[in-house]
Amino acid sequence: MESKLPDTLARLERTIAQRRAAAPDSSYVAQLNARGVPVIARKLGEEAVEAVVAALSGEPGELVSEAADVLFHLLVLLGAKDIPLADVLAELDRREGTSGLVEKAARKR
Amino acid sequence: MESKLPDTLARLERTIAQRRAAAPDSSYVAQLNARGVPVIARKLGEEAVEAVVAALSGEPGELVSEAADVLFHLLVLLGAKDIPLADVLAELDRREGTSGLVEKAARKR
Amino acid sequence: MESKLPDTLARLERTIAQRRAAAPDSSYVAQLNARGVPVIARKLGEEAVEAVVAALSGEPGELVSEAADVLFHLLVLLGAKDIPLADVLAELDRREGTSGLVEKAARKR
Amino acid sequence: MESKLPDTLARLERTIAQRRAAAPDSSYVAQLNARGVPVIARKLGEEAVEAVVAALSGEPGELVSEAADVLFHLLVLLGAKDIPLADVLAELDRREGTSGLVEKAARKR
Repeated sequence: MESKLPDTLARLERTIAQRRAAAPDSSYVAQLNARGVPVIARKLGEEAVEAVVAALSGEPGELVSEAADVLFHLLVLLGAKDIPLADVLAELDRREGTSGLVEKAARKR
Repeated sequence: MESKLPDTLARLERTIAQRRAAAPDSSYVAQLNARGVPVIARKLGEEAVEAVVAALSGEPGELVSEAADVLFHLLVLLGAKDIPLADVLAELDRREGTSGLVEKAARKR
Repeated sequence: MESKLPDTLARLERTIAQRRAAAPDSSYVAQLNARGVPVIARKLGEEAVEAVVAALSGEPGELVSEAADVLFHLLVLLGAKDIPLADVLAELDRREGTSGLVEKAARKR
Repeated sequence: MESKLPDTLARLERTIAQRRAAAPDSSYVAQLNARGVPVIARKLGEEAVEAVVAALSGEPGELVSEAADVLFHLLVLLGAKDIPLADVLAELDRREGTSGLVEKAARKR
């Protein structure tokens, strides 16, 4: 199943890019972008809170759903800020080069 | 660069699974898992708040870094709850089948 | 106007306590309590995210409104956990005894 | 004990106002204000996440401590934005005039 990972996120990123400039009433992505970055950022924060609560008190299926919401809104936010997901993955790759506690210390301000 | 996406997240998921049961002082992932799901969930929530703030008032590089933190801690949380990332991506694929506003309504409680 | 502060929060705490056990369709507080602590906690987290976004990108009036939402849901959460607001204020008083940077260090885990 | 409520928050608000312009290394409040509104807002969001987690998986004492952190950083944020706590309490009073579910609907966007 792992071979599908790239397809899903890469395709979702493209879909989001295509819908971004569409009429706001034609898609949820277009609607979010029409409302602006503060609303998109707020949605990401809210979905993350929901994932936290689902992890601590929900069924596994809820966390799957909330994690999907987090990923989706993270991609919408990155798109709205013109940041390719590839940049974020490259950052993860870079950190992976270092390891464990060292790596954590390295990325802290 | 898109062809790298799967590699990064799939490899990171494997690395996290390997480190999970290691001695807490040997890696950040082992340390988080030793502290338990509430601490991991809290970290995800905090990193999401940092991503929100970075999106609204930071440089693009900050959002890249905070988005990487969100993805990393989301994977650690999923791992701690024995949920494969593939399940979350499958949920995103499923939603992608429906479109736009309809899809949003469909996944709301 | 300061002389009103106690009245507002003390009265709101009492009102919340009275409504808690009412029929869920009779008040928002009763409805939240019927849904349980995870839902109340989630609401607190979401309102805090909204306050963060309002502080960074909204009009002053929005922050006033979101701050009121944070206080309201914090009181509902404390009530649902049988924690008097007075306990939280006593904790703030206790910290106030120490000062500045020292105090911050003292309360960090 | 209720008669102490006003004293605590009113006094804390004054203390925060006094410390705001002090040298950053002289107090935590001065340090936060020197770092700016995004950092203060981020702290509020993080403390709220910690309160959420404490409510769902911690001891009662942890929620008392995290609720105090939420109140403290909310006051610092309001101070940094020149919003008196009295304005937020007046908003709560105004809502209290209406009741229950109606009131909730009234304050939703």
